[in-house]
Amino acid sequence: MVTSAVVNTYPLSSYTFGTKEPKMEKDTSVADRLARMKVNYMKEGMRTSVEGILLVQEHNHPHILLLQIGNTFCKLPGGRLKPGENEIEGLKRKLSSKLAANSPSLQPDWQIGECVAIWWRPNFETIMYPYCPPHITKPKECKKLFLVHLSEREYFAVPKNLKLLAVPLFELYDNVQRYGPVISTIPQQLSRFQFNMIHP
Amino acid sequence: MVTSAVVNTYPLSSYTFGTKEPKMEKDTSVADRLARMKVNYMKEGMRTSVEGILLVQEHNHPHILLLQIGNTFCKLPGGRLKPGENEIEGLKRKLSSKLAANSPSLQPDWQIGECVAIWWRPNFETIMYPYCPPHITKPKECKKLFLVHLSEREYFAVPKNLKLLAVPLFELYDNVQRYGPVISTIPQQLSRFQFNMIHP
Repeated sequence: MVTSAVVNTYPLSSYTFGTKEPKMEKDTSVADRLARMKVNYMKEGMRTSVEGILLVQEHNHPHILLLQIGNTFCKLPGGRLKPGENEIEGLKRKLSSKLAANSPSLQPDWQIGECVAIWWRPNFETIMYPYCPPHITKPKECKKLFLVHLSEREYFAVPKNLKLLAVPLFELYDNVQRYGPVISTIPQQLSRFQFNMIHP
Repeated sequence: MVTSAVVNTYPLSSYTFGTKEPKMEKDTSVADRLARMKVNYMKEGMRTSVEGILLVQEHNHPHILLLQIGNTFCKLPGGRLKPGENEIEGLKRKLSSKLAANSPSLQPDWQIGECVAIWWRPNFETIMYPYCPPHITKPKECKKLFLVHLSEREYFAVPKNLKLLAVPLFELYDNVQRYGPVISTIPQQLSRFQFNMIHP
């Protein structure tokens, strides 16, 4: 794990983007998703999910890579850990599944950095909190967000049904309507870092 | 400086609270405050201010100590650094000025921890951002929030014109109307820490 108060950030143009086979969502509705979560909870207990914050820069301002599904919904690359799986290894697996080419020789060098936020889902509902609410002894999900330090050059393969967007911090900030509570407060969680904008 | 992913948190009842002489605000209106900021900027350049997040627990949930001025306005203990002053030493000086008894033997043992957020004021206006906005080359203020690790027992002396409140994270969260953008997102910034609730 890499931890540093200074984060090197490279231009979006440093990276190459291709496509790969679609990765369909497992659920077609929020209700389906919560129902599947409940079934899995009965089998495996609390779900732990891990997501990566991948930073690039444009015009000397940090941007975050988001995957857009359909016309509006955006999410961070990541996903659910297998029971007992290590968080860092699980995040690398999920990043490769969402963003890497299938060829092992084209895997990005995923350098997982600091955990910047943890969110808790107390019930089988969409609402999450940045703390485990009082009186909740059995939360249903714990979601951890990690900084991912990108190398100067990488090749990303984006599933054909998704769009990869580089969204500036100023667009995310205070925009809970568009990005939801988890993604819209990433600017606050990154504020303590110093971004070293590298122009190769 | 103390940095740790685990933060020991003691009950509010561990601490003793007295009073001391009033500390009046330097300005009586927002317009006065911004005008004084402008005068100081001309003399000294960008203002750096430091504020402390002091944690206690009640009912196993983390609470933050806030100073209330009048009936509604709340702020973190802290203030402006002198030109060239070290951030950690300056924060200790400000915490003592706001929360310590005058007697040197009663000074709390201020253990300054990690910087959890940095906010920028681009103009002589009230609005701040958790990043320096693009195209702003001369921000007017940089405000840094630090975790302060409290010992098991401390004596605090609160200026008579202020009220010290212990506000739970669940009250701050998503409550920008009451606490403003800086204080209301402290729960998100603290979410990555594990709170070790100690019951002496």
